[in-house]
Amino acid sequence: MAGETVKNFALQCPVELPSDQRIVMAHGAGGRLTQRLIERVFLPAFANAPLEERHDGALIQPNGARLAFTTDSYVVKPLIFPGGNIGDLAVNGTVNDLAMCGARPLYLSCGFILEEGLPMATLETVVASMRAAALTAGVQIVTGDTKVVDRGKGDGIYINTSGVGVVEGPFTSPARVEPGDAILLSGDIASHGVAILSVRDGLEFEAPIVSDTRELWSLVDALFRAGIDVHCLRDCTRGGVSSALNEVAQARSLMHQIEESAIPVHDAVKGACELLGLDPLYVANEGRFVAWIPAAQAAEALRVLPEGAASIGVVLDKTDPLVVMRSRIGGSRVVDMLSGEQLPRIC
Amino acid sequence: MAGETVKNFALQCPVELPSDQRIVMAHGAGGRLTQRLIERVFLPAFANAPLEERHDGALIQPNGARLAFTTDSYVVKPLIFPGGNIGDLAVNGTVNDLAMCGARPLYLSCGFILEEGLPMATLETVVASMRAAALTAGVQIVTGDTKVVDRGKGDGIYINTSGVGVVEGPFTSPARVEPGDAILLSGDIASHGVAILSVRDGLEFEAPIVSDTRELWSLVDALFRAGIDVHCLRDCTRGGVSSALNEVAQARSLMHQIEESAIPVHDAVKGACELLGLDPLYVANEGRFVAWIPAAQAAEALRVLPEGAASIGVVLDKTDPLVVMRSRIGGSRVVDMLSGEQLPRIC
Repeated sequence: MAGETVKNFALQCPVELPSDQRIVMAHGAGGRLTQRLIERVFLPAFANAPLEERHDGALIQPNGARLAFTTDSYVVKPLIFPGGNIGDLAVNGTVNDLAMCGARPLYLSCGFILEEGLPMATLETVVASMRAAALTAGVQIVTGDTKVVDRGKGDGIYINTSGVGVVEGPFTSPARVEPGDAILLSGDIASHGVAILSVRDGLEFEAPIVSDTRELWSLVDALFRAGIDVHCLRDCTRGGVSSALNEVAQARSLMHQIEESAIPVHDAVKGACELLGLDPLYVANEGRFVAWIPAAQAAEALRVLPEGAASIGVVLDKTDPLVVMRSRIGGSRVVDMLSGEQLPRIC
Repeated sequence: MAGETVKNFALQCPVELPSDQRIVMAHGAGGRLTQRLIERVFLPAFANAPLEERHDGALIQPNGARLAFTTDSYVVKPLIFPGGNIGDLAVNGTVNDLAMCGARPLYLSCGFILEEGLPMATLETVVASMRAAALTAGVQIVTGDTKVVDRGKGDGIYINTSGVGVVEGPFTSPARVEPGDAILLSGDIASHGVAILSVRDGLEFEAPIVSDTRELWSLVDALFRAGIDVHCLRDCTRGGVSSALNEVAQARSLMHQIEESAIPVHDAVKGACELLGLDPLYVANEGRFVAWIPAAQAAEALRVLPEGAASIGVVLDKTDPLVVMRSRIGGSRVVDMLSGEQLPRIC
């Protein structure tokens, strides 16, 4: 039965937390150790209001303009995978972080760290994908930088994209989440992580599984145009849906309740996850978001979102910062934040 | 005699240009191969007006705000060097790129790519320096990202900082350079590159040479406040003063004439360059800029700039895109753009 296959990977495989004396892969996995690094090292040093919001981007207001500003580095391995490559991933990822702030993405920067010996043809393939993704998302790559590191000090291509967008409605943010909000998912989950893993480990599935990488601004824009009062948006990248939910539950100290049966996972992806011992809730997505909206608008929001979107739960009026999932067979369990690392260098 | 020691490293060591089939270290050196990569790969793909300006940052105008937006990745080796570390370098470098656009730096993003196994104490040292540099420059680090790559796929810490600033006066840009403009240097050159090289090669000089890394906005702001009509600014990082001058000479197709005797180089740095066979004109700086201003305002500008600043030449009314240097002994030679690489991973 499908329900039994959704295992809590984090609970099954408890990771011995390191002594915090050295950087480990999990510091970059988007789960608990990433949060700890942010809390212990970055927040105290760089203390300021936008950073403490701990959102996918910062609200900045230079000369009265209401802008979102965000950054992400991409170190995905392999560079090219089913459904995309590091180039469109880098454009879509930063476009999406702006969209999660309720901002229309406009301008991107692009910083390359190239490894000596990289075939020029690989760079050209990646750049062509960035161009195409930028055109699709309606953004311009207006400034850039290129560094080259010695052979063996990089891994082909690392890309940083930073982005600036215009906040068109209210700044969507965890701070605006309220008890009673419906929790929506914009589509089926876990394809990106499984697609990466399949090529990395040389696995072949019956049906090819491709990454879900795509821009998400058009969906957010559609919600706004339909008059949906979107409270908060978060894309489910590293750490998957579980981390997105936990981050917001913790930020607002409000219990989130989700329904296992409502979470859309393609059969092929579900099968692959079973085979690999992965819980889809912890697998990275690159084209999916969670939206928190007033329950009364949930049906209208689902009419606007693409087929496959679903209402998966509700924010309870309880101040426990937990995510609780009701299973298909009636039980209930805590869905923890990703602990340790599930799959390194997924984005 | 000092004049004879200023060798044209690029001409002395012609580099066999590669077939452009693979990335080589020189693609990241800020000289001719970097230019070629930009022209052949990035500009055609990302074609847009701000990018084609080929400045240190882009002028963007979301919702009517006049902003500068810029990005730089930092891969300096070693991470900690005399006078600074990769952290203050990453803050100052992006602050300075904004300043070169005539923009008051306000907001920075920070993307870390950390190598598995990095001592946490090293990260903390670097972050503390970023904090201090941000405070000095008056900027906030408002958004960030952390990725971790496997041991042997990075080199401790790579940092990308992107920045947003408000353009307060006219956008300073190569397009505004005019025949007759005075060419000013904001201080003595080549300390950064020599400081890096000294620790990398374990050299010890009689007088310790420290990096010139510093923020430059306060100097630009002082020029603006003094009413100087600054036409163009460019910081002399990778590729040194020669590349900064050549880039502008080429962008405007105007011959630049500089005086060797006017170029300030500290004796200790000059001695080290002689020893190492380096031409100070090609050595990287991280706290120096070239300014193009109306000749009539040169004296006033020098009163405003720190001691050590100098007027080093003039833009001629000749459409040859060359930089020509008059030597101390009366001769004249073309100062070419850096060809090949002089010193990799200098910033």
